[in-house]
Amino acid sequence: MERIWTTELADHVGERVLLKGWLHRLRQLSHVTFLVLRDAQGTAQIVIDDTQLAAQLAALQAESLLSIQGEVVAEPQAPGGVEIHQPQIEVLVAVQEPPPLELFRPTLKAQLPTILDHAPVALRHLRQRAIFQLSSAAMNGFRDTLRARKFVEIQTPKIVGAATEGGANVFRIDYFDRSAYLSQSPQLYKQIMVGVFERVFEVGPAFRAEPHDTPRHINEFVSLDAEIGFIRDHFEVMALLAEVLRGVFATMQQEAETALAQLKVQLPMLPETVPTLHFSEALELVARETGADVTQAVDLSGADERVLGTWALREHNSDFVFVWGYPTQQRAFYTHPDPERPFYSRGFDLIFRGLELVSGAQRLHRYEEYLTALAVRGMPTESFVGYLEAFRHGMPPHGGFAIGLERLLARLIEAPNIRETTLFPRDLTRLTP
Amino acid sequence: MERIWTTELADHVGERVLLKGWLHRLRQLSHVTFLVLRDAQGTAQIVIDDTQLAAQLAALQAESLLSIQGEVVAEPQAPGGVEIHQPQIEVLVAVQEPPPLELFRPTLKAQLPTILDHAPVALRHLRQRAIFQLSSAAMNGFRDTLRARKFVEIQTPKIVGAATEGGANVFRIDYFDRSAYLSQSPQLYKQIMVGVFERVFEVGPAFRAEPHDTPRHINEFVSLDAEIGFIRDHFEVMALLAEVLRGVFATMQQEAETALAQLKVQLPMLPETVPTLHFSEALELVARETGADVTQAVDLSGADERVLGTWALREHNSDFVFVWGYPTQQRAFYTHPDPERPFYSRGFDLIFRGLELVSGAQRLHRYEEYLTALAVRGMPTESFVGYLEAFRHGMPPHGGFAIGLERLLARLIEAPNIRETTLFPRDLTRLTP
Repeated sequence: MERIWTTELADHVGERVLLKGWLHRLRQLSHVTFLVLRDAQGTAQIVIDDTQLAAQLAALQAESLLSIQGEVVAEPQAPGGVEIHQPQIEVLVAVQEPPPLELFRPTLKAQLPTILDHAPVALRHLRQRAIFQLSSAAMNGFRDTLRARKFVEIQTPKIVGAATEGGANVFRIDYFDRSAYLSQSPQLYKQIMVGVFERVFEVGPAFRAEPHDTPRHINEFVSLDAEIGFIRDHFEVMALLAEVLRGVFATMQQEAETALAQLKVQLPMLPETVPTLHFSEALELVARETGADVTQAVDLSGADERVLGTWALREHNSDFVFVWGYPTQQRAFYTHPDPERPFYSRGFDLIFRGLELVSGAQRLHRYEEYLTALAVRGMPTESFVGYLEAFRHGMPPHGGFAIGLERLLARLIEAPNIRETTLFPRDLTRLTP
Repeated sequence: MERIWTTELADHVGERVLLKGWLHRLRQLSHVTFLVLRDAQGTAQIVIDDTQLAAQLAALQAESLLSIQGEVVAEPQAPGGVEIHQPQIEVLVAVQEPPPLELFRPTLKAQLPTILDHAPVALRHLRQRAIFQLSSAAMNGFRDTLRARKFVEIQTPKIVGAATEGGANVFRIDYFDRSAYLSQSPQLYKQIMVGVFERVFEVGPAFRAEPHDTPRHINEFVSLDAEIGFIRDHFEVMALLAEVLRGVFATMQQEAETALAQLKVQLPMLPETVPTLHFSEALELVARETGADVTQAVDLSGADERVLGTWALREHNSDFVFVWGYPTQQRAFYTHPDPERPFYSRGFDLIFRGLELVSGAQRLHRYEEYLTALAVRGMPTESFVGYLEAFRHGMPPHGGFAIGLERLLARLIEAPNIRETTLFPRDLTRLTP
């Protein structure tokens, strides 16, 4: 008999079926025992009338592996409207110890460090695994949206010869008899690849040796990067980003509806026209809303971003707000200045529910501009030989953005700590599991 | 006017269109000048009758960026059957120096090290970029095939606390005040995640500090990993692998037909039933074909694999041959022994055109078996605490495989050196570009 998923039971009422999965929970009532079996798609309730079988099952630990044949019966009272009667149960693996966390509870009853310590088991919890079903759907939506627009997927090296964007916060590697570094972002490579494919994207790890122990920092994260050539200006990049996020949320809805329901996630409001402020307008708005004097500010604080988030929701019914035109000196060397007012750049941030989610920009594309930008910042050209070669030999106007996958999910499910949306987080103190 | 791709010209005969791209080549004949414009999709021939314009263009270096409006004319002699007449040409970026390699030639006229040194420009060559269009299609095909079978995509950490599979060939990282390592494969994490999703895959970098300077070794590569739970045996894993490869080749055909033609690639012969040999049968076959005495061998040599490849093609019209049952002691500790003959394992290799392309296996799934396997190999359980926790709390029979993306492409296009199918290779001596 072919195994079916627990989520397919409703199509098989009246038939005998084969299920396989984990012993999620056993509840012994006075006259009947309910066994909940969990598989990768969902759970099923199995009704056990046979007292001898019930006694055998009571001796099993949760998470034991079972193969169950039984009859599918419609039962409006049962979860999902169906249950299994007359089961024949084969124990595939008998677990010897109770799990470190009770997986059948609606939420895990433990502190985050304990949950993370026991991630190999904790991730089996229905709510925990739903987070990473959304993560998978987010990657699918990102890629599918870009593939449909002729973007080519690339895989660029994570071992690099020099710190990507200059100096600090880079992990050093023993690379045979010399030093190498872990890539902080695929930025330079994705720009080079615009010279080849015009439109590229990458989904991969990025590494930041930031010694911050906060709920917002992890030292290895997944970066969803895109870069596009032959743009007019940064507004085209921002429009592409909004399209990509629409694709991400649509794919979540299509592929992970159960996970969304499990996590009680409301998909965000992303209007056709996302509210968009110039950096100087954003400062004025913050001043108006809070009375604070921010006229000399060269960046937005976390508090400022929250003010803008609240404003966007209130005035535009939007969970998102774009801010562009951050001062050029505050942004990375490859950021294109605003030709009209070069103090300001064509760099932007996308603020999602009051927190910066995505950074992006139009980039410089002329070789001479790069030489100047590096010189102004006192950065040596020797670390950028290959990168500069691309510009010396013709690059179109281009721009792009990077979305932090774990941060996107954390904001979406409103998790207070980014570690909750990271499978196996790496931070100042955590290298395992 | 909206820009169109060079590959769309045939649909616009008689119209005026806008193209953008790189000055690929300029050929001045006595009465006419031909300009070849390259964009991300292809090339277009532009005919210049105006001698003044021709003289202006002659002053430009190759790889300059151009925006060209002109009339599309059917011309059977022209490449693709169309060309552009009456062009108006705007120079977007005027390049100042000739490129380090002549990109218009059918193949790059340089040695591999020179091509790799100048990768940011060399990758623009039509043949070079075709390789990485196939690479993108391969990833798409891998993922799409698995997504259709309810596999969930995961992203597991590349910074790990201990060497994944024991000891050697691991890069050490300065991780704040201690040591960490670069992941050699997602093996342990993908197995853990079978406990969560039953079916998982990952596309990501893997790192091997092998100090070998050969055409077959690079130190960072892209691993296409899959793992599936509730299998009967390794034959199910092998069947899945064959399905995945069929998906990969089908996607190449659909999405990268031009690239296949450019590279003159014949898609491999992958019959419905892939020839499959037990390790001991493979040894006998090698002995029969070559007269060599290999009866005591515990592994297959490169020469043996070539013999098997030749045999599979000759006898079964197949570019692939499976060998399973490699001696258990020769395989990683998590490999499931053959229950009938535990000297042999349920580990397999897939040999593609005489070279090992994929390794896979059914894995151990019982906690006690892991304790024994580690003890037998003298490996400490302390390095595997999280991993072992998954097995202590119930794992189904499972197995999987890993395909090296660059190796798959190298065999497919019959490149003698794996660096040819790696965007920016990392090896003993190469860390840039």
